[in-house]
Amino acid sequence: MTGISRTPDPPYYAVIFTSRRARRHEGYEAMADRMVELAREQPGFLGMESVREGALGITVSYWESTGAIEGWRRHVEHQEAQRRGREDWYEAYSVRVARVERARAFDREKE
Amino acid sequence: MTGISRTPDPPYYAVIFTSRRARRHEGYEAMADRMVELAREQPGFLGMESVREGALGITVSYWESTGAIEGWRRHVEHQEAQRRGREDWYEAYSVRVARVERARAFDREKE
Repeated sequence: MTGISRTPDPPYYAVIFTSRRARRHEGYEAMADRMVELAREQPGFLGMESVREGALGITVSYWESTGAIEGWRRHVEHQEAQRRGREDWYEAYSVRVARVERARAFDREKE
Repeated sequence: MTGISRTPDPPYYAVIFTSRRARRHEGYEAMADRMVELAREQPGFLGMESVREGALGITVSYWESTGAIEGWRRHVEHQEAQRRGREDWYEAYSVRVARVERARAFDREKE
């Protein structure tokens, strides 16, 4: 679980990853933590929001450009995590790449 | 909590709503259920994915066009829910409107 990301003004990009985890998930938590840590180090990374409720999870990561997303997708360690995800950890998932065009935020403490 | 939405081929639009709920949340669950029900009836609605983990929630809804999103944003009952959300239910939230450009899905049963 993360917080709400502070992102710059649009446009930027979002990767919406929705997943249903398999019952068998040895090694999943360590991988998930490692992927968050690694994603934060990538060029063009802007933020990440992630929530899991039982089997269902939504992770949205934010990026400066589609090139940054492509770089992350092809990262060797991330490729290995993707492979293990398909083989072991996920029953199903969807990945959507979207261009953020408008954004607004509300924070009670700042009103 | 929902499942993974089956959406048509891109392009289409996503509204990414990330929220941190306040401690006080009488009436929240009933409103949230009602908003899901109502959103599904709106023209141009394509799907919704929603997960909550403690205070933090992510809801992504999918729409045919920005016009459909605008219609939903202005819906009278939804406007009232937004007002109560700011007054009572949320400490903070962000709303991002994004154009989905690419999507892929994995389903173990279909591989």
